[in-house]
Amino acid sequence: MSDLPTFDDVKRAAVRLSGVAIRTPLLTNVALDEAVGARVFIKPETLQRTGSFKFRGAYNRLSQIAEGDRAKGVVAWSSGNHAQGVAAAGKLFGIPTRIVMPSDAPAIKVERTRRSGAEVIFYDRVKDDREAIGRAIAEQHGSVIVPPYDDPFIIAGQGTVGLEIAEDAAQIGLALDAVLVPVGGGGLIGGSSLALRELSPLTKIFSIEPEGFDDHRRSLIAHQRLRNERIDGSICDALMAPMPGELTFAINDKHLAGGFAVSDAEVKEAMRFAFAELKLVVESGGAVALAALLTGRVDVGGQIVAIVLSGGNVDPAFFSEILTAD
Amino acid sequence: MSDLPTFDDVKRAAVRLSGVAIRTPLLTNVALDEAVGARVFIKPETLQRTGSFKFRGAYNRLSQIAEGDRAKGVVAWSSGNHAQGVAAAGKLFGIPTRIVMPSDAPAIKVERTRRSGAEVIFYDRVKDDREAIGRAIAEQHGSVIVPPYDDPFIIAGQGTVGLEIAEDAAQIGLALDAVLVPVGGGGLIGGSSLALRELSPLTKIFSIEPEGFDDHRRSLIAHQRLRNERIDGSICDALMAPMPGELTFAINDKHLAGGFAVSDAEVKEAMRFAFAELKLVVESGGAVALAALLTGRVDVGGQIVAIVLSGGNVDPAFFSEILTAD
Repeated sequence: MSDLPTFDDVKRAAVRLSGVAIRTPLLTNVALDEAVGARVFIKPETLQRTGSFKFRGAYNRLSQIAEGDRAKGVVAWSSGNHAQGVAAAGKLFGIPTRIVMPSDAPAIKVERTRRSGAEVIFYDRVKDDREAIGRAIAEQHGSVIVPPYDDPFIIAGQGTVGLEIAEDAAQIGLALDAVLVPVGGGGLIGGSSLALRELSPLTKIFSIEPEGFDDHRRSLIAHQRLRNERIDGSICDALMAPMPGELTFAINDKHLAGGFAVSDAEVKEAMRFAFAELKLVVESGGAVALAALLTGRVDVGGQIVAIVLSGGNVDPAFFSEILTAD
Repeated sequence: MSDLPTFDDVKRAAVRLSGVAIRTPLLTNVALDEAVGARVFIKPETLQRTGSFKFRGAYNRLSQIAEGDRAKGVVAWSSGNHAQGVAAAGKLFGIPTRIVMPSDAPAIKVERTRRSGAEVIFYDRVKDDREAIGRAIAEQHGSVIVPPYDDPFIIAGQGTVGLEIAEDAAQIGLALDAVLVPVGGGGLIGGSSLALRELSPLTKIFSIEPEGFDDHRRSLIAHQRLRNERIDGSICDALMAPMPGELTFAINDKHLAGGFAVSDAEVKEAMRFAFAELKLVVESGGAVALAALLTGRVDVGGQIVAIVLSGGNVDPAFFSEILTAD
């Protein structure tokens, strides 16, 4: 595999993930179609193993570690979904996992990461350098570092989401006008774009980010990687990467049609809609593409579109707060 | 169609519902399989149009009303899910719908029924006779009465759930040992049993009910229809039918392997599990089969089983209360 993954790498990842990851369905919902005035297909990665798409990339990456190196373990840093993906994949391969997580990560993500057998090391999101902490741990144990997005095998693994969307749409004879994908570091959308460009070249791919963390949206306009000014302060804990990845942006700059940002309030409204109409539990970061549709931020009137609900790991107390807010 | 529907009637219903009802997927979940020690397939009718399986039967029944009779409308009585199903089907056929609902029905079900264009008439669950109220309205307008379960077309429509389970299981080469179905009046399980007996004759079919409303469980043992002593007092508002239907029990007495009951507390625990692990919003009555698995009430160790999550229409405030309870 060269530095930048290709469509072939996504197909190889799909073979590895077959029977291990869940092939999530492509859902439709009448109330959503009526609300948006479009034909919408929902890819619920909330239903994926570990509750988010992250398992796909993690498993694909860990599959590359030689058996003799497995005992040395792997290290990852993550706000929670990548952590769970790596922990679950590690368990399947018999690889010890150490995860560096922000001290303000949702309790449910910490607990679920530990339950998969991972050791969790906390850092302060504002004061500490999580990469430095991770690298020190990796050096100590001789472990492989599993980055959250800027890795060809991670990108290819996440790309199986786009591959499944394209395959399922083709099977029902649909030509997708657009696909909307939640974006943090850009691995999910980048990998997915490798499959969509190939199988559905006319489909426009849009990145959806939280307001204040719209580094992709701005970077796509500038054709260079721009950093977010803030490093915290969104309810979308899963989407607060500091800037687009090097590999992911090299792909996304070529393949994406543009980006949009949604506010915390709009994300909460989307989570309530997912509860009331879709009957799906979606976490804040996982709901941004749905929010972009419901707010009309992306104009899809009369079109055929797919959105990814990227994760569903949300604390019950926080979810209840959102459900019962006026 | 004779009085008792047949497998052919279920297949005819499936043709009518094709492209109108959602063909809900058959989901799997690693955490559930591990918790139960079985291979579990989930049929999430929560994702069905109107948020429960009830749309299937209602649409199939309303399809039988001649065009010239449509303006006279239909009348139904229901705690909410059948109401929504009838209202939504009525809207599609251009048939006015009047729904008699208990005054303590969940607010969300009332609101959603009205939103589909139905007129809602309330009754007191303890003092009033909802059937008498419904029949009076039907007489006044010359409307057709759409019963919640004891009707061949309703039963056949709900049976498409079992048909899809059997078809999807066969497609992945699975022999289901058991299917667990939430039961109120017995239409869903009765119709489903028509398909399962034919396509998967070795599969055991079990009714799951709330404690205190286990009329099917007791009736199956006695081989005669027994009445519940109570008429309210379960959180499973969708499953409080007074006794098995005449038609449904004639089918169920022949096809079912037995019944089990679960407590309110066990149902709440199942709803929390569905939130945390399945990432699905399930209403109380819709969660009884899941509860029967999680409590070990039905012994399925090492087996291949399917459960139906029959509905997801739950008030946000009540759902929040359950999520945040200790």
